[in-house]
This record gives sequence, C-alpha cells and structure tokens, in this order.
Amino acid sequence: MQMPDPDSRILSRRDAIVERLRGCLPADAVISDPAETRAYECDALTAYRCAPLAAVLPRTTEEVAAVLKVCHDEGVPVVPRGSGTSLAGGALPTADCVILGVARMTEVLETDYADRLIRVQTGRTNLSVTGAVEEDGFFYAPDPSSQLACAIAGNIAMNSGGAHCLKYGVTTNNLLGVTMVTMEGEIVELGGGHLDAPGLDLLGVICGSEGQLGVVTEATLRILPKPEGARPVLIGYGSNEVAGACVSDIIKAGVLPVAIEFMDRPCIRACEAFAKAGYPDCEALLIVEVEGSDAEIDHQLGLIKQIARAHDPVELREAGDADEAQRIWLGRKSAFGAMGQINDYICLDGTIPVSELPRVLTRIAELAAGYDLEVANVFHAGDGNMHPLILFNANVEGELAKAEALGADILRLCVEAGGCLTGEHGVGIEKRDLMADQYDPADLEAQMAVKDVFDPGWLLNPAKVFPLDVSEARRSARLAAE
Amino acid sequence: MQMPDPDSRILSRRDAIVERLRGCLPADAVISDPAETRAYECDALTAYRCAPLAAVLPRTTEEVAAVLKVCHDEGVPVVPRGSGTSLAGGALPTADCVILGVARMTEVLETDYADRLIRVQTGRTNLSVTGAVEEDGFFYAPDPSSQLACAIAGNIAMNSGGAHCLKYGVTTNNLLGVTMVTMEGEIVELGGGHLDAPGLDLLGVICGSEGQLGVVTEATLRILPKPEGARPVLIGYGSNEVAGACVSDIIKAGVLPVAIEFMDRPCIRACEAFAKAGYPDCEALLIVEVEGSDAEIDHQLGLIKQIARAHDPVELREAGDADEAQRIWLGRKSAFGAMGQINDYICLDGTIPVSELPRVLTRIAELAAGYDLEVANVFHAGDGNMHPLILFNANVEGELAKAEALGADILRLCVEAGGCLTGEHGVGIEKRDLMADQYDPADLEAQMAVKDVFDPGWLLNPAKVFPLDVSEARRSARLAAE
Repeated sequence: MQMPDPDSRILSRRDAIVERLRGCLPADAVISDPAETRAYECDALTAYRCAPLAAVLPRTTEEVAAVLKVCHDEGVPVVPRGSGTSLAGGALPTADCVILGVARMTEVLETDYADRLIRVQTGRTNLSVTGAVEEDGFFYAPDPSSQLACAIAGNIAMNSGGAHCLKYGVTTNNLLGVTMVTMEGEIVELGGGHLDAPGLDLLGVICGSEGQLGVVTEATLRILPKPEGARPVLIGYGSNEVAGACVSDIIKAGVLPVAIEFMDRPCIRACEAFAKAGYPDCEALLIVEVEGSDAEIDHQLGLIKQIARAHDPVELREAGDADEAQRIWLGRKSAFGAMGQINDYICLDGTIPVSELPRVLTRIAELAAGYDLEVANVFHAGDGNMHPLILFNANVEGELAKAEALGADILRLCVEAGGCLTGEHGVGIEKRDLMADQYDPADLEAQMAVKDVFDPGWLLNPAKVFPLDVSEARRSARLAAE
Repeated sequence: MQMPDPDSRILSRRDAIVERLRGCLPADAVISDPAETRAYECDALTAYRCAPLAAVLPRTTEEVAAVLKVCHDEGVPVVPRGSGTSLAGGALPTADCVILGVARMTEVLETDYADRLIRVQTGRTNLSVTGAVEEDGFFYAPDPSSQLACAIAGNIAMNSGGAHCLKYGVTTNNLLGVTMVTMEGEIVELGGGHLDAPGLDLLGVICGSEGQLGVVTEATLRILPKPEGARPVLIGYGSNEVAGACVSDIIKAGVLPVAIEFMDRPCIRACEAFAKAGYPDCEALLIVEVEGSDAEIDHQLGLIKQIARAHDPVELREAGDADEAQRIWLGRKSAFGAMGQINDYICLDGTIPVSELPRVLTRIAELAAGYDLEVANVFHAGDGNMHPLILFNANVEGELAKAEALGADILRLCVEAGGCLTGEHGVGIEKRDLMADQYDPADLEAQMAVKDVFDPGWLLNPAKVFPLDVSEARRSARLAAE
C-alpha cells in the first residue's frame, strides 16, 4: 500500500516542532526518541509500518487543543490514535506526522442514571465503560470483538458495532454528544444528553468519519439497563444457503434477537478444535441469542426454534444452563484466534442487505474457487455485517496478493448486492482504493468538500479513506491555494 | 411575527414564472389563481398568513427537480410543504415564493420485510405508512399526535417524535435513507437500507433541518414487528414534583416503558370533562405503558407499580381490559382538543433532561404566577419532551402578548436547564428569535455555513429557523456576491 512521500520541510524542522510540543505538555507526554516512537509505527493492520515524527499523549481536551494549534501552525499532519486496534490501518502514521494518542484520557467525567448516560474521555476502553456502570445494573451496548482493548475514540471514528448491534444498534445509535477539537485547535460541543439535540445534527457526520474531521476527546454515551437474562440457541444446517434463508426468515418474522452469529464449515472446524464447544459437524452454524425475563426468553426461543425447524436443521440445541451458554459463545468469540492458529488470513468487513445473504454466500464460494483459495465465514448475520476470512499461506509467494485480489472482489460483490465496503472496521488505508467502486467521482467530491470545511489544510489523518491520488491532489491544491 | 418584504422583481415576473412552471408539470399541478393559492396561506400556526406567488403539486422526484431548477434559475424562493400541520409555521409562505407541496406524492415504492424497511414518497401520511404494513404484523414507530394528517416529509423536516419515542426513538432513529432534491435541482441519495450506511452520515444533517437544505421526496423507513400486546397503568399524585420524581425513578431503575405521559390538574380536569376516562381528582397523572407478551407486561408493570407506590400515589390503576386501556389513552389523546374547548392556548415544545423535571415544573408554575396566567402541562415525560399549554383569553387585549412572553421565558428555562428550544415541532418562524438564546453567534454562523453549502442563494424556506435579521443579512450578502 503506497503512502505519500514525507514532507522534507517538516522533517528538517523536527527538533523545533518537538520543542514547541514540549511547551504544551508535561515532559513525559511528548515522545520523540526513535526507539520509542517505534511503538506507534502500526495498528492492528500490521503489514504496514511507519514510525511517526513524534507522538504525544495528552491528558485533557485543553492539551489536545494546544497540540493541534502547534501542528496547524507548523503545517504538520496529525494522526489521531485510540488503542491502535484498527484492522484497516486507520491509525497508520506517516513519517512526517505527529501521533496524537488519547490512551491516557480514560476518566469517567459523569454518570447520570436518571438520564441514562455516561460521559467519558475517549481514551477509555469500550469494556471499561460498562465496567463503570455495571454494579448499578447498566451497560454500554456496542461490543466490538476487541472491546477489552479498543478505545471509545476509535469506536466513534469507525462507528463500531459488535455481536449485539442487531438489537441495540451501532456506535452512532448510542452516542449522544461529543467534545471535539478541530485541526485549528478550537474546542466544539456537538449533540448532548438528549434524544433530540438542538440544531443541525453534525454529530452524525463526525461518527464514522475516521479521524478526518477532528479529534474527539470526550463522549456522552447512552447506557442501558442490563437485561435480566440471556440464552443462546445453536442451530446447524447442511448448507450455507439454508442457514442464510433461516436468518432471513427470523428477521422477517419480526423476532428481534440480540445476536445472530453465523459460522461456516471451515470456521466451525477450527473453533471446535480450539474451544471444544461441542459444535456439530455440519456446513453452517447459527448462534441466536435472545434476552429478557425467563418467560420472554422461552417465548422468543419458541418462535425461533419453530422457524429453524421448518428449514430442517442438522442440530437444534438450546443452552440448558449458564455453563453451556458460555461454551456456545466461547467457540464463536475465539473464532479469529482459532483461525489464526491454523492459517494466515485476511479478515474482511462488508455489509449486505440481510435478504441477499444466501445469494452472496454462494457467490463468495464461487469467487474463492476461481482463485483456488478457501474462505471461512463468521459474522453478525442478523444485521448483514459480514466478516469473511480469506485463508492463505503467507509462505507461498504470490498467495497474499491473490488473497488481496479475492478480498477486493468480495467487497465489490457487497457493493453490487446493495451493501457497502465496510461495516465497522472502516476504510482506513486498506479500502481507500475501493472507494471508487462504491462512489462515483461526484460523490467522492462531496465527501471531500465536507473535509475541506473541517480541515482545510488536509492535515488530519492523511492518506486514509479517499483514493490516494485523489486525496493527494486535493491536499496539494489546498496547499497551493494558501 | 415580521416577514421579509417580497421581492418586487419576482412579483413583476409572476406570469412568466408560472408559465415556466407549467412547462414542467401537468396543467392541474400548477396553482396560481389567487382564490386557490389562498389554501396554502398558512399551516397549523394559523396566526400568521400569507398567500404564495404560486403552488405546485408534483407527483415524482423528477418533477420536483424540474420545478426547483426553474425556481433556482429565476431566483424564486421555495417553501416545501408536507400536510401543513406545522405548529411552528414551518411551511408559512412568503408573498414571492412558490409552495412546493408533496401531498400528491403518496406512493409506497417498496416494502421489504426481510430487511425490515419500507420506501415511500414523502407526501404519504405517517399513519398510512403503518397502514401499508400492519396486515403483515409490522408498524412504523414514530407517532406524532397529528399522525392521521401529517406527512413523512414534515416528520423528517422536524425530526418528529410522538408518545412512543421513549422506546423507539424519534424520526432520525427510524430513517434509513432519503432521496433529496437540492435547490439546484440535483437529485441525491443519502443513506440506504442498512444499519451502517457507507460514507459520511449526511442523512443526520438533513433530518430535522426544516426544509432549509433540500426537498426530501422519498424516504426509506425502518419498520418494526408489532408487539404482542400493550397495557397502560394510571398513577395519580398529590403534586407535580412527586410525579416528576416518580418518572425520574422509573427511568433510573432501568425499566423501559414505551410511553410515560404526564398531565397536571388543569389538563386532567379538561380531559375528564371531555373524555370521561375516569381520571381521579388529583394534581398530577402519569400514564405509563409497557409492551410485550403477557408475562413480560406483568413483570414490567410489577416493577413500575412498586416504584410508584414508594412515592405514595393517590391512585394506582392498571387497565383491566382493552376497553379500559383505550379509555385511559382517550383522555390523553384528546387533551389538546379538550383544552381548546375551554380555553385559548399556546402549545409549547421544549426538551429538558429527565432528571430536571421536578425543578422545571416548579419553576414553570412560578413563572406563570408572575404573569398571572395558567399553564397546563401534558407531555411525553419519559424522554423529557415537554408541551406546556399556556392558557389565555384571546378576547382580552394584551393577553396573547403576555402568553407569548411567558412562552419565551419557559423555553429559555428549558435551555438553561440543559435542554433545548424544540423537541419535535421545530423552530419555524415561531422560535427563530429564541435561537439567539440557545446559540452564541459563532454557533449560528456554523449552522448558516452548512446552509450556504446546500443552498448558496438562500432560496429554500426563507425567514425560518434563524433570527430574521441574521438570515436576511446573510441572504443579501449572498445575493450581492453573485
């Protein structure tokens, strides 16, 4: 993946820039020693690495504003970073950038149970937001697989979802307001503690904007009462298509489970070997979980089992107790780790209309066969967010390139089916060139015009989201106009 | 309420403009006879009236685009209109404008139960969206009181809520995508049929933008499975403050009713006289409704009754059967009509944090006493959307002005309490001058900069939303720059 050449004028002013940053922050919050900046050279898309000019670790919104003012003044690109768990290279540095890490900004600023909200600094991890309120019976709903590590800042940047977003929505449905610092260093408040905030809804534009428009330092999040209980049911089928049709029928029937997870044979096999969850030997597995009181769970699972039976399942097993429920989930939750033990893989992230599931699964298998590669499917089926894993052998020359080509074909298939390139991982550097498949030039132009408004110098999170040639042309034009 | 002087250059070109509009539409879709344009002289804020230059009633998005191209070319202001039910004057014409009414655009374009969505033309009424899917067991959640008449176009413009939005959210939470025509006549698609649409979320900016940014002609709406059943409970208290505290405790406890409606004594008395709902003679009444299976309803109502009892209610009555449930609701739903039989009133619409409810209710009573006026409160308490009714006698000179002054004070109180000027009725012309209380000049400037992008000539829905002097200055400046 090509990155732009670093700006030599910035590199030559490195010491002066670092000196100015030290003027804004405590001594231990500015990292410029090359041995230490290496820690920020990549995120979870580890194939691409580049150490930044420097990294800063502010503790307050005001410190973030001070840093951004300096960088704006010096014309230095800034790459915001949460916990560095991006699978799309969303926090990949350039050699001439300052990494602005929010990892030390972890405070809970306010909990308000009467208004059902929590306000946190955005360096706080996803799971520790729930941690702050669970003793009082509440939780924060979006639950990406990386929730132990990932920061709210990154969740907002990528509009993250998770296994339970079928019922509770993704980040944008649970985000009430933010404090954001613009590239100029101005502190702005967007949204607030209400269902219906005053003024134009600019909050929505920020959520999912991948650090292109500003640095979100504080967030007001909706918290929900913990359900009384939850219970999963395991349903096995003889083909992906039948399992897909069952998912489609469950949604159509109007039942609203909290999660419908889908695994196909390659994935089932790996997970079973890894987690001993007692999965049946079949082509496709669904884990469907419902929540509520015991009576409600019984009722909903009754309906779901009735629909499942109509599709002639190989296996249909309701969790008898908490232990079995945990084992059913353990297999699914360890899927990525389990796959990694036996294969190299690329994890894709696209969305499709739920109704297209059977057709898309069939077509993915055909595409994979054309490349002589295997694809394992494990994903949130209920909301159409797919995570196909393309398996390959990194030691065989040319296999990575082949896998990447197949990945691009699958994402184009998602777009063609009426879906989109990314569900929750973001575009980052990984999918920037595919944006031209999703959007025509006028659409891309409109999105870049929005960036022009928030970040006229194109200094925030460079070389991401937009096709590189397009965004570099834009950046140069803006520079020339200054 | 002052309106800008009509542009005499436009008035003098009236015949030529009408002629060009006739070139875009069938003969019966262009209304220019003054006897007929009178039908469009006001919306539900009937105190202000002004017949438009002409009115057009297109049937398709393409016809809307053709009309807007002509108006853009001629520099004629356009006022989009749904069903004309705005309580804030959101569809009030100017004498030099073309009313663009979507009332004939009522088609259902697509229903898709597997993806749980419906796509409609936006002239369709709110209730008839549910009408199109209810036989199949689905419904469209937002339910403004005017749902029999109001159009989806207006719901989107004002981001409407309704009695049930505590559980299901307001329009923005149920809107998946729109087809919009810009003032230049360009047709754009925003959002789509997914939880997580690709690209920047510009859809959020459109929802609630009161016809300032474009004309929304088609909408993709989320539909939900109809719950098995619902049951209300009626709770009476000896004071507004105690009822407010009970609401706050229900929310805090994590129960999620579909509705918590609040009525105070003046309102209870009027509704009881009108609807014979069997309401007790007390200071404050709550109607709390929960949904689900019988078992779930029993369980949730059990919790709610427990909380209610802790506040020592005057009355606590669960609906015994469907008939009683309907009678409980009949009183609430006829509240506005019942009040109108015995008083003139102004209906306000502000939001506050739920936790501030008791304090705000006390302060409203104090403010009203200061003006020697009575305020009746009936509103969606669960989500903090208040609708105080200021009662006055229109036949007494000066009472309307006094009532309007009290209304402004109450809305300022909402802002001061951390809420906002409008929950679901919008700013329109009614509250445009109060925008300066909610926002400082820089905030207003930012919102107007967004309008600059979508509608550079400031032709769409003039004299609304922004304080008149500010928006007129902006409009003149843009005209001069052309």
